[in-house]
Amino acid sequence: MIKLTKDQEILKTKFYELKEQAGTHSPSIETLKTAIPEIEISIDACFLSNPYATDLFVDHLNRDVMIKGKFRAFLEFYPSQNNVIASRISSAINVRPQSIFVGNGAIEIIQAVIKNFVKKKMVIVLPTFSPFYEFAESNIELVFFYLDKENSFKINLRDLSKFIKNEKPDSLVLVNPNNPTGGYILKEDLISFIDLHKELENIIVDESFIHFAIEYSKISDFSIQNLVKNHDNLIVIKSMSKDFGIAGIRAGYAVMSPTKVELLTRYGFLWNSNGISEYFFSLYSKNYFRKEYEQIRRKYINETQSFFNSLITIPNIRVYPSVANFVLVELIDGTRSEDFVFKLLLDYGIYIRIVNDKKGLNGEFVRIASRSSKDNHEIVQSIKSIFKLS
Amino acid sequence: MIKLTKDQEILKTKFYELKEQAGTHSPSIETLKTAIPEIEISIDACFLSNPYATDLFVDHLNRDVMIKGKFRAFLEFYPSQNNVIASRISSAINVRPQSIFVGNGAIEIIQAVIKNFVKKKMVIVLPTFSPFYEFAESNIELVFFYLDKENSFKINLRDLSKFIKNEKPDSLVLVNPNNPTGGYILKEDLISFIDLHKELENIIVDESFIHFAIEYSKISDFSIQNLVKNHDNLIVIKSMSKDFGIAGIRAGYAVMSPTKVELLTRYGFLWNSNGISEYFFSLYSKNYFRKEYEQIRRKYINETQSFFNSLITIPNIRVYPSVANFVLVELIDGTRSEDFVFKLLLDYGIYIRIVNDKKGLNGEFVRIASRSSKDNHEIVQSIKSIFKLS
Repeated sequence: MIKLTKDQEILKTKFYELKEQAGTHSPSIETLKTAIPEIEISIDACFLSNPYATDLFVDHLNRDVMIKGKFRAFLEFYPSQNNVIASRISSAINVRPQSIFVGNGAIEIIQAVIKNFVKKKMVIVLPTFSPFYEFAESNIELVFFYLDKENSFKINLRDLSKFIKNEKPDSLVLVNPNNPTGGYILKEDLISFIDLHKELENIIVDESFIHFAIEYSKISDFSIQNLVKNHDNLIVIKSMSKDFGIAGIRAGYAVMSPTKVELLTRYGFLWNSNGISEYFFSLYSKNYFRKEYEQIRRKYINETQSFFNSLITIPNIRVYPSVANFVLVELIDGTRSEDFVFKLLLDYGIYIRIVNDKKGLNGEFVRIASRSSKDNHEIVQSIKSIFKLS
Repeated sequence: MIKLTKDQEILKTKFYELKEQAGTHSPSIETLKTAIPEIEISIDACFLSNPYATDLFVDHLNRDVMIKGKFRAFLEFYPSQNNVIASRISSAINVRPQSIFVGNGAIEIIQAVIKNFVKKKMVIVLPTFSPFYEFAESNIELVFFYLDKENSFKINLRDLSKFIKNEKPDSLVLVNPNNPTGGYILKEDLISFIDLHKELENIIVDESFIHFAIEYSKISDFSIQNLVKNHDNLIVIKSMSKDFGIAGIRAGYAVMSPTKVELLTRYGFLWNSNGISEYFFSLYSKNYFRKEYEQIRRKYINETQSFFNSLITIPNIRVYPSVANFVLVELIDGTRSEDFVFKLLLDYGIYIRIVNDKKGLNGEFVRIASRSSKDNHEIVQSIKSIFKLS
């Protein structure tokens, strides 16, 4: 069990004041560094992002844009409209452009979908990504379907179906793989489930972590975005921040019925991309880029899974099964999660995420992101050392 | 009077098909170039932007970020939340942070304000920036107050007051300086008008072009954003795209009552800035940057006004008084505005904006943006040459 020194307790108080200001989300590294210069972060394992993919993007940006002196144009001129960028994404994901809505990050899409399509009652599986319930205004009744810790937060779709038949919501949210649990619904099972629930007006599936998923140890394309053409009630949301390592450029899209896309773009969302996100989607539409990315994705998944396997060997913690690029960890030796997080931060410069504040998580939980292979190794060693295991 | 050749007519048809797809707004240069490679644009005078300010921003970005290898972080990491960026803007504009809402461009703010604060009935002064009426959903009654061409589209505030007393709207939109007319309400007059209309729930003032304004030939700060602290019903919207020449990074903010800011950020808009827009606002908070910008602003205003004065000497057109960075021009020799625009585009590579499609403009109108001094000179010479005046 970990305890902090007096000096560490003082800094911790300062840190939590900052966290309070950021609401239910972590303060950014920049905010943190400015407010508490004593903190030196060497590994941000709070941050859910494939670092190799960032390298790949930066490399292309340098070669295509920077060196050729084309960057100024990205800053100076208006980017293209939503439907123009949608048509570029279309070729990459094999979905017709009228079904694609481009967002200023997936978060803008979550906000737009909840505000415009959810009618009265929404079922949310807990624990999950908090904006899905935070962004719902008071006229929306929220009903929570709780995942069971004893069942490793694995979703039971049969129970969820019964719950929905009982509650009769108009909308349902599924984050797959789920955040912060890392739990996953197999593609086949999800398709059967969606087929069963034609009565729902909106089945909102957030696939922001789908590029990290594995099924029976196999890596493939597990997205259900192609299902939208036969399921008008399906909305598939996709952040590009995590898998492509580009959170700063704010790129995301959703696949939904053309009627829904038309409804959103009729009253706004025309110029919600920026010059760099437009460039990213152009790059994404190129086969050669997707091929290079695919190699990096596989490398990262393999490293990530082997990172999780190393964490499992530490006896003071319980590691929940994850096919995302982060893992939910429970402290089972009496250590408080905030002491654990702050110890890692002050003694090793490793920043991880407390998830105690998430609805539906009771206990001492943290979420650890998979970073580079080297960083992951350091995280494992530091945690072992904190628990005096090495 | 200008006529096109047959070949030019064919390209024109292609161009207007493209324009139709872009709705009531111009297709971007990128879209245009991709679709019609025959068109070579050397001067984009459709585009409302201070080119010297772009230079200034690019210069700082290069020195502060690119050369120091800090750019990757802007792409990789999540930018700060809305309120953090608001507090940086606060120091630049001397408005308390709780009253500042940061937008992904001013257009996101227009959308948010209309969707969240306008209740039932909104008065819009025409002609004006079209999203103000296009983004209003069918539950909002729109009432138009038409500016009079015979009075050079100058607004008569006494008549507007009477109109408002009669119509009893909850909201009013004023774009000052107005787009596309370039017309302007003096700061003093606008303040008196706002004082008179406490019965309005929302007075929405779009000051996106205020940095170009002059009063009695003097350049100063004519923004009324400081009035919000005593006028809860005032919402001042500010795009940074035009005056800072950075349309591609999507930066804008609004000053409104803290209650309104809180209402918007409670249900979304937390991470709507990107890495580069956050950097811009950090830069904007620095005195040295604002001093450098001020010189460039003055230079550009002076060049812009002298450009307008040159246009006035051309007898085939009528130039309406403007204190924005564009000018409304009417063709008064029988030339159709689309022939004029297309002739300039094909023969001189100068792209200007047709504004016939704007509600409230009847006649053959175009809008010409002020670019660099050299470009402005070329625009004047090309127009003269089209009309066989040189």
